[in-house]
Amino acid sequence: MEIDRLEKQLAFLREADKAKSVFRNTILLDESRRENDAEHSWHMAVCAMLFVEYLNEPVPDMAKLMQMIILHDIIEIYSGDTFAYASADILSTRREREEAAADRIFSILPEDQAIVFRALWNEFEEGSSPESKCARLADAFMPLYHNYCTKGRKWRELGVTKDMVLRKVEFMKECSTDIYRFTCSLIVDAVDRGYLPE
Amino acid sequence: MEIDRLEKQLAFLREADKAKSVFRNTILLDESRRENDAEHSWHMAVCAMLFVEYLNEPVPDMAKLMQMIILHDIIEIYSGDTFAYASADILSTRREREEAAADRIFSILPEDQAIVFRALWNEFEEGSSPESKCARLADAFMPLYHNYCTKGRKWRELGVTKDMVLRKVEFMKECSTDIYRFTCSLIVDAVDRGYLPE
Repeated sequence: MEIDRLEKQLAFLREADKAKSVFRNTILLDESRRENDAEHSWHMAVCAMLFVEYLNEPVPDMAKLMQMIILHDIIEIYSGDTFAYASADILSTRREREEAAADRIFSILPEDQAIVFRALWNEFEEGSSPESKCARLADAFMPLYHNYCTKGRKWRELGVTKDMVLRKVEFMKECSTDIYRFTCSLIVDAVDRGYLPE
Repeated sequence: MEIDRLEKQLAFLREADKAKSVFRNTILLDESRRENDAEHSWHMAVCAMLFVEYLNEPVPDMAKLMQMIILHDIIEIYSGDTFAYASADILSTRREREEAAADRIFSILPEDQAIVFRALWNEFEEGSSPESKCARLADAFMPLYHNYCTKGRKWRELGVTKDMVLRKVEFMKECSTDIYRFTCSLIVDAVDRGYLPE
Protein backbone atom coordinates (compact mmCIF):
# COMPACT_ATOMS: atom_id res chain seq x y z
CA MET A 1 0.00 0.00 0.00
CA GLU A 2 1.31 3.45 -0.94
CA ILE A 3 0.58 5.75 1.97
CA ASP A 4 0.57 8.78 -0.34
CA ARG A 5 -2.23 7.22 -2.40
CA LEU A 6 -4.28 6.41 0.69
CA GLU A 7 -3.76 9.93 2.04
CA LYS A 8 -5.29 11.36 -1.14
CA GLN A 9 -8.26 9.04 -0.82
CA LEU A 10 -8.74 10.02 2.81
CA ALA A 11 -8.56 13.70 1.86
CA PHE A 12 -11.38 13.04 -0.61
CA LEU A 13 -13.39 11.25 2.08
CA ARG A 14 -12.92 14.19 4.45
CA GLU A 15 -13.97 16.67 1.75
CA ALA A 16 -17.02 14.52 0.94
CA ASP A 17 -18.24 15.06 4.50
CA LYS A 18 -19.17 18.61 3.45
CA ALA A 19 -21.97 17.27 1.22
CA LYS A 20 -23.86 16.78 4.49
CA SER A 21 -24.00 20.55 4.81
CA VAL A 22 -25.11 21.41 1.26
CA PHE A 23 -28.83 22.03 1.66
CA ARG A 24 -31.38 21.68 -1.14
CA ASN A 25 -34.80 23.17 -1.83
CA THR A 26 -36.49 19.96 -0.73
CA ILE A 27 -37.81 19.33 2.73
CA LEU A 28 -38.01 16.07 4.65
CA LEU A 29 -41.41 14.41 4.61
CA ASP A 30 -41.93 15.38 8.26
CA GLU A 31 -41.27 19.00 7.13
CA SER A 32 -38.73 19.44 9.95
CA ARG A 33 -35.93 20.81 7.76
CA ARG A 34 -34.34 20.90 4.33
CA GLU A 35 -32.60 17.86 2.96
CA ASN A 36 -28.87 17.83 2.26
CA ASP A 37 -26.98 16.41 -0.71
CA ALA A 38 -25.67 13.32 1.08
CA GLU A 39 -29.16 12.31 2.22
CA HIS A 40 -30.64 13.08 -1.16
CA SER A 41 -28.06 10.91 -2.93
CA TRP A 42 -28.75 8.05 -0.55
CA HIS A 43 -32.52 8.31 -0.98
CA MET A 44 -32.11 8.56 -4.75
CA ALA A 45 -30.14 5.29 -4.69
CA VAL A 46 -33.05 3.58 -2.92
CA CYS A 47 -35.40 5.06 -5.52
CA ALA A 48 -33.26 3.78 -8.40
CA MET A 49 -33.17 0.29 -6.88
CA LEU A 50 -36.97 0.32 -6.96
CA PHE A 51 -37.45 2.01 -10.34
CA VAL A 52 -35.06 -0.04 -12.49
CA GLU A 53 -37.94 -2.37 -13.31
CA TYR A 54 -39.88 0.46 -14.95
CA LEU A 55 -37.20 1.65 -17.36
CA ASN A 56 -37.86 1.67 -21.10
CA GLU A 57 -34.35 0.34 -21.61
CA PRO A 58 -32.77 -1.99 -19.03
CA VAL A 59 -29.72 -0.83 -17.09
CA PRO A 60 -26.80 -3.06 -18.11
CA ASP A 61 -24.51 -1.97 -15.27
CA MET A 62 -26.12 -1.61 -11.87
CA ALA A 63 -22.75 -1.03 -10.18
CA LYS A 64 -22.16 1.96 -12.44
CA LEU A 65 -25.64 3.31 -11.75
CA MET A 66 -25.21 3.13 -7.98
CA GLN A 67 -21.76 4.72 -8.02
CA MET A 68 -22.94 7.44 -10.39
CA ILE A 69 -25.74 8.31 -7.99
CA ILE A 70 -23.36 8.39 -5.03
CA LEU A 71 -21.12 10.87 -6.85
CA HIS A 72 -23.62 12.90 -8.88
CA ASP A 73 -23.94 15.86 -6.49
CA ILE A 74 -20.56 15.80 -4.78
CA ILE A 75 -19.34 18.75 -6.87
CA GLU A 76 -21.98 20.90 -5.12
CA ILE A 77 -19.62 21.03 -2.14
CA TYR A 78 -17.99 23.82 -4.16
CA SER A 79 -20.66 24.94 -6.62
CA GLY A 80 -23.63 24.82 -4.24
CA ASP A 81 -27.03 23.37 -5.11
CA THR A 82 -28.56 25.13 -8.12
CA PHE A 83 -32.32 25.33 -7.69
CA ALA A 84 -34.03 23.39 -10.48
CA TYR A 85 -36.19 26.41 -11.30
CA ALA A 86 -33.45 29.05 -10.91
CA SER A 87 -33.40 32.12 -13.18
CA ALA A 88 -31.98 31.80 -16.71
CA ASP A 89 -29.03 33.87 -15.55
CA ILE A 90 -28.05 31.41 -12.87
CA LEU A 91 -28.74 28.38 -15.04
CA SER A 92 -26.59 29.78 -17.87
CA THR A 93 -23.46 29.80 -15.71
CA ARG A 94 -24.29 26.52 -13.97
CA ARG A 95 -22.37 24.28 -16.33
CA GLU A 96 -19.23 26.36 -16.02
CA ARG A 97 -19.40 26.54 -12.22
CA GLU A 98 -20.01 22.82 -11.96
CA GLU A 99 -17.18 21.89 -14.33
CA ALA A 100 -14.79 23.99 -12.24
CA ALA A 101 -16.08 22.33 -9.07
CA ALA A 102 -15.63 18.88 -10.64
CA ASP A 103 -12.04 19.72 -11.63
CA ARG A 104 -11.39 20.77 -8.07
CA ILE A 105 -12.95 17.92 -6.12
CA PHE A 106 -11.86 15.00 -8.27
CA SER A 107 -8.28 16.29 -8.43
CA ILE A 108 -7.99 15.49 -4.72
CA LEU A 109 -7.93 11.79 -5.65
CA PRO A 110 -5.04 9.75 -7.08
CA GLU A 111 -4.98 10.49 -10.80
CA ASP A 112 -6.30 7.13 -12.06
CA GLN A 113 -9.21 7.26 -9.63
CA ALA A 114 -9.93 10.91 -10.44
CA ILE A 115 -10.38 9.89 -14.08
CA VAL A 116 -12.83 7.10 -13.19
CA PHE A 117 -14.89 9.24 -10.80
CA ARG A 118 -14.95 12.21 -13.17
CA ALA A 119 -16.09 9.96 -16.03
CA LEU A 120 -19.04 8.79 -13.91
CA TRP A 121 -19.97 12.39 -13.18
CA ASN A 122 -19.61 13.39 -16.85
CA GLU A 123 -21.81 10.49 -17.92
CA PHE A 124 -24.50 11.54 -15.46
CA GLU A 125 -24.36 15.12 -16.74
CA GLU A 126 -24.58 13.97 -20.33
CA GLY A 127 -27.60 11.82 -19.57
CA SER A 128 -27.56 9.61 -22.63
CA SER A 129 -26.52 6.19 -21.24
CA PRO A 130 -29.17 3.90 -19.69
CA GLU A 131 -27.51 4.30 -16.27
CA SER A 132 -27.54 8.09 -16.44
CA LYS A 133 -31.14 8.10 -17.62
CA CYS A 134 -32.17 6.05 -14.62
CA ALA A 135 -30.14 8.26 -12.28
CA ARG A 136 -31.74 11.40 -13.72
CA LEU A 137 -35.17 9.87 -13.46
CA ALA A 138 -34.67 9.24 -9.74
CA ASP A 139 -33.04 12.66 -9.30
CA ALA A 140 -36.10 14.39 -10.79
CA PHE A 141 -38.71 12.16 -9.22
CA MET A 142 -37.56 12.41 -5.62
CA PRO A 143 -37.90 16.20 -5.04
CA LEU A 144 -41.19 16.21 -6.95
CA TYR A 145 -42.51 13.40 -4.80
CA HIS A 146 -41.33 15.14 -1.62
CA ASN A 147 -43.18 18.23 -2.76
CA TYR A 148 -46.31 16.24 -3.48
CA CYS A 149 -46.17 14.50 -0.08
CA THR A 150 -45.65 17.80 1.76
CA LYS A 151 -48.64 19.42 0.04
CA GLY A 152 -46.45 21.47 -2.28
CA ARG A 153 -44.97 23.59 0.48
CA LYS A 154 -41.74 24.34 -1.35
CA TRP A 155 -43.48 24.70 -4.74
CA ARG A 156 -45.71 27.40 -3.30
CA GLU A 157 -42.96 29.09 -1.30
CA LEU A 158 -40.73 29.29 -4.35
CA GLY A 159 -43.38 30.26 -6.92
CA VAL A 160 -43.23 27.05 -8.94
CA THR A 161 -46.18 26.41 -11.27
CA LYS A 162 -47.64 23.40 -13.06
CA ASP A 163 -46.08 24.29 -16.42
CA MET A 164 -42.63 24.66 -14.89
CA VAL A 165 -42.88 21.20 -13.34
CA LEU A 166 -44.27 19.64 -16.50
CA ARG A 167 -41.37 21.02 -18.55
CA LYS A 168 -38.92 19.72 -15.96
CA VAL A 169 -40.20 16.14 -16.11
CA GLU A 170 -40.71 15.88 -19.85
CA PHE A 171 -37.37 14.11 -20.31
CA MET A 172 -38.69 11.27 -18.12
CA LYS A 173 -40.72 10.06 -21.11
CA GLU A 174 -37.54 8.78 -22.67
CA CYS A 175 -36.42 7.01 -19.48
CA SER A 176 -39.60 5.37 -18.30
CA THR A 177 -43.03 5.72 -19.84
CA ASP A 178 -44.55 4.22 -16.68
CA ILE A 179 -42.90 6.61 -14.23
CA TYR A 180 -43.47 9.56 -16.56
CA ARG A 181 -47.20 8.84 -16.74
CA PHE A 182 -47.43 8.33 -13.01
CA THR A 183 -45.52 11.57 -12.40
CA CYS A 184 -47.92 13.47 -14.68
CA SER A 185 -50.84 12.06 -12.73
CA LEU A 186 -49.24 13.31 -9.50
CA ILE A 187 -48.86 16.78 -11.03
CA VAL A 188 -52.49 16.89 -12.12
CA ASP A 189 -53.57 15.74 -8.68
CA ALA A 190 -51.29 18.32 -7.02
CA VAL A 191 -53.01 21.07 -9.00
CA ASP A 192 -56.47 19.70 -8.09
CA ARG A 193 -55.55 19.66 -4.42
CA GLY A 194 -54.11 23.16 -4.51
CA TYR A 195 -50.53 22.03 -3.83
CA LEU A 196 -49.26 23.39 -7.13
CA PRO A 197 -50.48 26.63 -8.75
CA GLU A 198 -51.88 26.20 -12.29
CA MET B 1 -47.40 -1.22 -14.53
CA GLU B 2 -49.39 -2.43 -11.52
CA ILE B 3 -50.30 0.62 -9.49
CA ASP B 4 -50.60 -1.48 -6.34
CA ARG B 5 -47.00 -2.60 -6.74
CA LEU B 6 -45.77 0.95 -7.28
CA GLU B 7 -47.76 2.15 -4.27
CA LYS B 8 -45.91 -0.34 -2.07
CA GLN B 9 -42.58 0.85 -3.43
CA LEU B 10 -43.51 4.47 -2.80
CA ALA B 11 -44.57 3.61 0.74
CA PHE B 12 -41.11 2.13 1.25
CA LEU B 13 -39.50 5.27 -0.19
CA ARG B 14 -41.55 7.44 2.19
CA GLU B 15 -40.60 5.29 5.16
CA ALA B 16 -36.93 5.41 4.11
CA ASP B 17 -37.05 9.18 4.56
CA LYS B 18 -37.03 8.59 8.31
CA ALA B 19 -33.42 7.32 8.13
CA LYS B 20 -32.50 11.01 7.83
CA SER B 21 -33.67 11.45 11.42
CA VAL B 22 -31.90 8.46 12.98
CA PHE B 23 -28.86 10.04 14.60
CA ARG B 24 -25.65 8.18 15.38
CA ASN B 25 -22.83 8.64 17.86
CA THR B 26 -20.61 10.14 15.19
CA ILE B 27 -20.22 13.83 14.56
CA LEU B 28 -19.58 15.63 11.28
CA LEU B 29 -15.98 16.62 10.72
CA ASP B 30 -16.88 20.28 11.35
CA GLU B 31 -18.29 19.08 14.72
CA SER B 32 -21.55 20.97 14.05
CA ARG B 33 -23.87 18.05 14.79
CA ARG B 34 -24.32 14.29 14.84
CA GLU B 35 -24.53 12.36 11.61
CA ASN B 36 -27.68 10.50 10.57
CA ASP B 37 -28.07 7.05 9.03
CA ALA B 38 -28.80 8.26 5.49
CA GLU B 39 -25.67 10.43 5.42
CA HIS B 40 -23.58 7.70 7.00
CA SER B 41 -24.70 5.16 4.40
CA TRP B 42 -23.86 7.57 1.60
CA HIS B 43 -20.43 8.35 3.01
CA MET B 44 -19.77 4.66 3.59
CA ALA B 45 -20.54 4.01 -0.10
CA VAL B 46 -17.89 6.58 -1.07
CA CYS B 47 -15.46 4.89 1.33
CA ALA B 48 -16.16 1.45 -0.15
CA MET B 49 -15.57 2.78 -3.68
CA LEU B 50 -12.13 3.91 -2.52
CA PHE B 51 -11.24 0.89 -0.37
CA VAL B 52 -12.10 -1.96 -2.76
CA GLU B 53 -8.53 -1.88 -4.01
CA TYR B 54 -7.18 -2.74 -0.56
CA LEU B 55 -9.28 -5.85 0.08
CA ASN B 56 -7.60 -9.18 0.74
CA GLU B 57 -10.19 -10.82 -1.48
CA PRO B 58 -11.62 -8.91 -4.47
CA VAL B 59 -15.31 -8.02 -4.50
CA PRO B 60 -16.95 -9.96 -7.35
CA ASP B 61 -20.19 -7.99 -7.35
CA MET B 62 -19.84 -4.24 -6.94
CA ALA B 63 -23.56 -3.69 -7.58
CA LYS B 64 -24.37 -5.94 -4.66
CA LEU B 65 -21.88 -4.15 -2.43
CA MET B 66 -23.30 -0.72 -3.19
CA GLN B 67 -26.92 -1.81 -2.68
CA MET B 68 -26.02 -3.63 0.53
CA ILE B 69 -24.47 -0.44 1.89
CA ILE B 70 -27.51 1.63 0.90
CA LEU B 71 -29.79 -0.77 2.81
CA HIS B 72 -27.59 -1.83 5.71
CA ASP B 73 -28.93 0.60 8.32
CA ILE B 74 -32.47 1.14 7.07
CA ILE B 75 -33.89 -1.13 9.76
CA GLU B 76 -32.71 1.41 12.36
CA ILE B 77 -35.74 3.49 11.43
CA TYR B 78 -37.50 1.11 13.85
CA SER B 79 -34.72 -0.34 16.00
CA GLY B 80 -32.70 2.87 16.44
CA ASP B 81 -28.93 3.07 16.18
CA THR B 82 -27.21 0.76 18.65
CA PHE B 83 -24.02 2.37 19.90
CA ALA B 84 -21.03 0.21 18.91
CA TYR B 85 -19.81 0.19 22.52
CA ALA B 86 -23.21 -0.25 24.17
CA SER B 87 -23.57 -2.34 27.33
CA ALA B 88 -23.72 -6.13 27.04
CA ASP B 89 -27.39 -5.92 28.01
CA ILE B 90 -28.28 -3.75 25.06
CA LEU B 91 -26.06 -5.66 22.66
CA SER B 92 -27.60 -8.98 23.70
CA THR B 93 -31.07 -7.93 22.51
CA ARG B 94 -29.79 -6.11 19.45
CA ARG B 95 -30.12 -9.01 17.03
CA GLU B 96 -33.72 -9.66 18.06
CA ARG B 97 -34.73 -6.00 17.81
CA GLU B 98 -33.08 -5.65 14.44
CA GLU B 99 -34.65 -8.81 13.03
CA ALA B 100 -38.08 -7.55 14.05
CA ALA B 101 -37.31 -4.18 12.47
CA ALA B 102 -36.18 -5.89 9.26
CA ASP B 103 -39.40 -7.95 9.14
CA ARG B 104 -41.36 -4.75 9.48
CA ILE B 105 -39.61 -2.48 7.01
CA PHE B 106 -39.05 -4.94 4.19
CA SER B 107 -42.64 -6.20 4.37
CA ILE B 108 -43.74 -2.78 3.08
CA LEU B 109 -42.33 -3.78 -0.33
CA PRO B 110 -43.87 -6.09 -2.95
CA GLU B 111 -43.07 -9.63 -1.81
CA ASP B 112 -40.46 -10.48 -4.45
CA GLN B 113 -38.58 -7.25 -3.76
CA ALA B 114 -38.85 -7.70 -0.01
CA ILE B 115 -37.04 -11.02 -0.39
CA VAL B 116 -34.21 -9.48 -2.43
CA PHE B 117 -33.72 -6.51 -0.08
CA ARG B 118 -33.91 -8.67 3.02
CA ALA B 119 -31.34 -11.07 1.59
CA LEU B 120 -28.94 -8.15 1.10
CA TRP B 121 -29.45 -7.08 4.69
CA ASN B 122 -29.02 -10.65 5.97
CA GLU B 123 -25.81 -11.03 4.00
CA PHE B 124 -24.44 -7.82 5.50
CA GLU B 125 -25.32 -8.98 9.00
CA GLU B 126 -23.70 -12.36 8.41
CA GLY B 127 -20.52 -10.73 7.17
CA SER B 128 -18.96 -13.71 5.42
CA SER B 129 -19.21 -12.80 1.71
CA PRO B 130 -16.55 -10.55 0.13
CA GLU B 131 -19.17 -7.82 -0.39
CA SER B 132 -20.30 -7.87 3.22
CA LYS B 133 -16.71 -7.87 4.45
CA CYS B 134 -16.00 -4.73 2.43
CA ALA B 135 -19.23 -3.11 3.64
CA ARG B 136 -18.37 -3.90 7.26
CA LEU B 137 -14.85 -2.60 6.80
CA ALA B 138 -16.21 0.76 5.60
CA ASP B 139 -18.89 0.73 8.32
CA ALA B 140 -16.24 0.34 11.03
CA PHE B 141 -13.64 2.60 9.48
CA MET B 142 -15.82 5.67 8.95
CA PRO B 143 -16.87 6.41 12.56
CA LEU B 144 -13.35 5.64 13.78
CA TYR B 145 -11.90 8.03 11.23
CA HIS B 146 -14.45 10.71 12.16
CA ASN B 147 -13.42 10.30 15.75
CA TYR B 148 -9.75 10.57 14.88
CA CYS B 149 -10.34 13.71 12.77
CA THR B 150 -12.39 15.36 15.51
CA LYS B 151 -9.70 14.72 18.14
CA GLY B 152 -11.65 11.88 19.72
CA ARG B 153 -14.47 14.08 20.99
CA LYS B 154 -17.07 11.33 20.97
CA TRP B 155 -14.63 8.68 22.23
CA ARG B 156 -13.87 10.82 25.27
CA GLU B 157 -17.49 11.87 25.81
CA LEU B 158 -18.65 8.27 25.72
CA GLY B 159 -15.82 6.72 27.72
CA VAL B 160 -14.35 4.66 24.90
CA THR B 161 -10.80 3.38 25.45
CA LYS B 162 -8.01 2.07 23.24
CA ASP B 163 -8.71 -1.60 24.02
CA MET B 164 -12.39 -1.23 23.17
CA VAL B 165 -11.53 0.25 19.79
CA LEU B 166 -8.84 -2.36 19.10
CA ARG B 167 -11.29 -5.18 19.81
CA LYS B 168 -13.86 -3.53 17.54
CA VAL B 169 -11.55 -3.35 14.55
CA GLU B 170 -9.89 -6.75 14.90
CA PHE B 171 -12.20 -8.29 12.30
CA MET B 172 -10.76 -5.86 9.72
CA LYS B 173 -7.67 -8.08 9.52
CA GLU B 174 -9.67 -10.59 7.57
CA CYS B 175 -11.06 -7.97 5.18
CA SER B 176 -8.01 -5.88 4.42
CA THR B 177 -4.57 -6.26 5.94
CA ASP B 178 -3.66 -2.81 4.59
CA ILE B 179 -6.62 -0.95 6.06
CA TYR B 180 -6.36 -2.90 9.31
CA ARG B 181 -2.71 -1.91 9.74
CA PHE B 182 -3.45 1.69 8.87
CA THR B 183 -6.36 1.74 11.32
CA CYS B 184 -4.14 0.38 14.09
CA SER B 185 -1.62 3.13 13.37
CA LEU B 186 -4.42 5.71 13.70
CA ILE B 187 -5.41 4.22 17.06
CA VAL B 188 -1.83 4.34 18.36
CA ASP B 189 -1.52 7.92 17.15
CA ALA B 190 -4.88 8.84 18.73
CA VAL B 191 -3.62 7.56 22.10
CA ASP B 192 -0.33 9.49 21.70
CA ARG B 193 -2.21 12.69 20.94
CA GLY B 194 -4.61 12.23 23.85
CA TYR B 195 -7.69 11.71 21.65
CA LEU B 196 -8.29 8.20 22.97
CA PRO B 197 -7.74 7.13 26.60
CA GLU B 198 -5.31 4.22 27.03
